[in-house]
Amino acid sequence: MTYCCGMLVEDGLVMMADTRTNAGVDDISVYRKLHILCEAPDRIIVACASGNLSVTQLVISRLEEGLAPLQEGDPPRTLAGVGSMFQAVELVGEAVAAARKDVGRALSAENIEAGVSLLLGGRVGDNKLRLYLIYSAGNFIECHSDAPFLQIGETKYGKPILDRALQWNTALDEAVKVGLISFDSTMRSNLAVGRPLDVIVIPGDGKKPIIRRRIGVDDPYFDDLSARWSMLLGESRAIIPTPPFMQ
Amino acid sequence: MTYCCGMLVEDGLVMMADTRTNAGVDDISVYRKLHILCEAPDRIIVACASGNLSVTQLVISRLEEGLAPLQEGDPPRTLAGVGSMFQAVELVGEAVAAARKDVGRALSAENIEAGVSLLLGGRVGDNKLRLYLIYSAGNFIECHSDAPFLQIGETKYGKPILDRALQWNTALDEAVKVGLISFDSTMRSNLAVGRPLDVIVIPGDGKKPIIRRRIGVDDPYFDDLSARWSMLLGESRAIIPTPPFMQ
Repeated sequence: MTYCCGMLVEDGLVMMADTRTNAGVDDISVYRKLHILCEAPDRIIVACASGNLSVTQLVISRLEEGLAPLQEGDPPRTLAGVGSMFQAVELVGEAVAAARKDVGRALSAENIEAGVSLLLGGRVGDNKLRLYLIYSAGNFIECHSDAPFLQIGETKYGKPILDRALQWNTALDEAVKVGLISFDSTMRSNLAVGRPLDVIVIPGDGKKPIIRRRIGVDDPYFDDLSARWSMLLGESRAIIPTPPFMQ
Repeated sequence: MTYCCGMLVEDGLVMMADTRTNAGVDDISVYRKLHILCEAPDRIIVACASGNLSVTQLVISRLEEGLAPLQEGDPPRTLAGVGSMFQAVELVGEAVAAARKDVGRALSAENIEAGVSLLLGGRVGDNKLRLYLIYSAGNFIECHSDAPFLQIGETKYGKPILDRALQWNTALDEAVKVGLISFDSTMRSNLAVGRPLDVIVIPGDGKKPIIRRRIGVDDPYFDDLSARWSMLLGESRAIIPTPPFMQ
């Protein structure tokens, strides 16, 4: 299982992913699911991936090598060459659809699911930050300010806090905190999602530094957040009166 | 969609169900999903149902009329005649498996899912209260004190609060409150779950009255609980420090 969350607010973009991969409960590993696909002075393009690990790796490797050019003699098509985030998501969507098709037939014969879904976020040139969700068929949707987050994988346990707390004008540090609470809720209810967590924060102001962080299994801030949240939920519950029909 | 939750704590049994039924988002109705299957001085047996509505109704109607006797000349087998909750869950499981088999072939030809799952709770004679989850194949599991709740339908949004707050020694009125918070979280994130909610509370002490309650769309206690919970979550979130790596 996997949980990845992308949050696009007024002040910037936050992407988070857990690292727990399992092929059955007796085969659990740590694999990075948050990938910097392309980084250069004029661009940063980040993906979080959920689904079949071999298909994900195929997608990423093919994007690194470049997809076949549309016209003979042209160079391979890579994310270094796209002119916008829309061109980036089209290229990655094409790679997802192709990888699924190429590997899917062999996997479906073994009753193994070949689907992957990705969050793709970042910036090209001086354009605005953008965030997309790419489905396993290669089609995609874009995140907008009315619901400033997208999730893939084990999405439901961590969605209520995002629904309640995240708005377009939420501050960037607050968004990171809300995202971590969302991961805490998910990890409490699904053992197949686990630390370390990978976090990248890309401020809307291109002059501010990009923050990258791996939150380990003994990260003191996350431990404190988890303990406080649990305690505060208990205190909140105690404040709410019991139902009048029970008295 | 549907959300039903059963909670079996030291002091008694609580069962809750929403009432929203939909055949597509353009066909939404209110149907009772919490059913008193059998009530007599020596027994109360309650079911909450999730899944195909026609199959659910078939199961309940057949249980009312009684399943065919195992030996010719015997009376039909009904819940009024069972000697324990275990016999009750076996009878209901048999009815679920039979209804699914009888209707399933016709429905699968139309690509309609015929599965149902049920929570079955109550007491027969002077025995302890018991709570079961019956799967669509008719097999079942029993609720035990280590995890004193069972859910069917749209289970994930409302599970974190149950995981955190509900223990075997939770008071009965507190359990009802926790259950209602669980429904509030679910209804906020899934429009296909909605009020009215049906609630039944069966105290472990057989001399105490059974409480039945329908919580309507304008129930003032539930409105207050929902507003307070939202406010308290916001306040709790504000108390937690923002991540140190964001400063």
